[in-house]
Amino acid sequence: MLIVPEALIADLVSPEDAFAAVAATFAAMARGEAYNFPVVREALGEGRQYGFKSGLDRAGGMLGVKAGGYFPGNMARGITNHQSTVYLFDPESGRPTAMVGGNLLTALRTAAASALSIDRLARREARVLGVVGAGHQAGFQLRAAARVRDWDRVIAWNLHPEMLPKLGAVAEELGLPFEAVGLERMVEADAIITITSSPAASLMAAHVAPGAHLACMGTDTKGKQEVQVALVAKARLFTDEVAQSVSIGEAQHAVAAGLVAGADIVPLGAVLAGADAGRRSDEEITLFDGTGVGLQDLAVAAVAVTRARERGLGVEVSV
Amino acid sequence: MLIVPEALIADLVSPEDAFAAVAATFAAMARGEAYNFPVVREALGEGRQYGFKSGLDRAGGMLGVKAGGYFPGNMARGITNHQSTVYLFDPESGRPTAMVGGNLLTALRTAAASALSIDRLARREARVLGVVGAGHQAGFQLRAAARVRDWDRVIAWNLHPEMLPKLGAVAEELGLPFEAVGLERMVEADAIITITSSPAASLMAAHVAPGAHLACMGTDTKGKQEVQVALVAKARLFTDEVAQSVSIGEAQHAVAAGLVAGADIVPLGAVLAGADAGRRSDEEITLFDGTGVGLQDLAVAAVAVTRARERGLGVEVSV
Repeated sequence: MLIVPEALIADLVSPEDAFAAVAATFAAMARGEAYNFPVVREALGEGRQYGFKSGLDRAGGMLGVKAGGYFPGNMARGITNHQSTVYLFDPESGRPTAMVGGNLLTALRTAAASALSIDRLARREARVLGVVGAGHQAGFQLRAAARVRDWDRVIAWNLHPEMLPKLGAVAEELGLPFEAVGLERMVEADAIITITSSPAASLMAAHVAPGAHLACMGTDTKGKQEVQVALVAKARLFTDEVAQSVSIGEAQHAVAAGLVAGADIVPLGAVLAGADAGRRSDEEITLFDGTGVGLQDLAVAAVAVTRARERGLGVEVSV
Repeated sequence: MLIVPEALIADLVSPEDAFAAVAATFAAMARGEAYNFPVVREALGEGRQYGFKSGLDRAGGMLGVKAGGYFPGNMARGITNHQSTVYLFDPESGRPTAMVGGNLLTALRTAAASALSIDRLARREARVLGVVGAGHQAGFQLRAAARVRDWDRVIAWNLHPEMLPKLGAVAEELGLPFEAVGLERMVEADAIITITSSPAASLMAAHVAPGAHLACMGTDTKGKQEVQVALVAKARLFTDEVAQSVSIGEAQHAVAAGLVAGADIVPLGAVLAGADAGRRSDEEITLFDGTGVGLQDLAVAAVAVTRARERGLGVEVSV
């Protein structure tokens, strides 16, 4: 089996690679050729979270698991708080085929899903990109989104405004004018990415213009919320996986309020596979509830393994 | 992190090591210092099964997952049908610390649990050991059981009697007289290990003498059954984990019939930790429902890692 350490990933997997890999696995899910296994997620105490996301993609020949979590004491040790590793197996024999550092891959696959939703669901002529959140993930989101539309400018809001210049630097690198704004100015945006770990809604219905697309990427567990329930209720809803959307995704609150049901939410894979037409009008608000599924992790890890093998990188070990 | 390949395990982990490691983790479970995460178990099609067993042992400083399954096409490829690997992580930081071949470890930890139950629950003067089943696991069971009592002889039954001589050879190696018998002769046994993958009960109440101890090790999923419900209902019940015993263990059928509830089943760890006295009389039938928990896998894998480090074995890689 091949070990692909974290340090190699940046060189091996591009945002373009992640975009293509996540699109392929979402489409395989929609065709019934790939599915995610139940997620294990456990609190270990002292704020530590750990869990496993796993799945099988018959179309891509992938079986595996991402083991990972959040360890708030890590910063003091000089390592990142989010720690994850992806393990791949041969779906025919069950033999381990690879172990791949999963930290950067997680950021890439999350950004790829968001960009994929913008690509397929935002209006063609979208020109203003809004970003709600300015943490570590926000930069990846912005880079991925920059690939799928010809943006004129970026507006951004964060609970802690002092973090916004770092996101502004990414925009500058991409050649995009950047402005820190109040949430009420998100009404100027044609697409809005929310990427916070907020326990309560920041973005309200009044902040969003008709015809906007929202990519809600921050809510991946019970109790998190980025967007007002009324906004979820009036949007046309898309997701990576309906079962996660209604239970741990942004839609969980609208579902709990009885305003939305699983049947109202379209898998993005169905749009990619041509089974759903996606956006129906220039006035409709579309909302992608990105909860993060194990198959995304396997898909980008498999790219890392392919690229590493092509270039003779990584460490081959026998097990 | 350290890679400990499958081929090293036989040299690194003895049945004695497995016994001590499983006892420690069962006791930690009983004290509330260790717990298993929900099990993921999925059918992949064409008879293939795959899944993940995971847990945290605060007492032992262990966090990890066993990824493994059953791949019936493997024999034709010259590799074993059961394939598993154990991944360990630092519970403080979430960093991967080891990857350990899990095939032999699974056999050792299962046999250790069974032997532990015989050690603590069979009558002191037990002299006749019965074995129901003669597959790959049965030999491990017999070796482990041989350590905990001074047996006079072994009697065994298998659905396919032609497999029994292989188990007889293990008994001979241990210096124990061995006899293939009909199930009705199990009434001679002071302790009986059942280790089959049967979908229906083989061992009936009439086959078991008062005062016998049963270690039922084969039933680890819905739909399997080794022992008549009436026998489960009249025995005093012990298990590795009550939640698994009532849902996927031997007790599942008695629970479904309304004859047994979770509250009737004592964790073996409670006996090891001194919270339950175990066997109450020489007439009582005791039954250990060994379902197999992730923490057992982590415990024996951690032994393999410690021994490998002591002896400078395995492959150190950075991730």
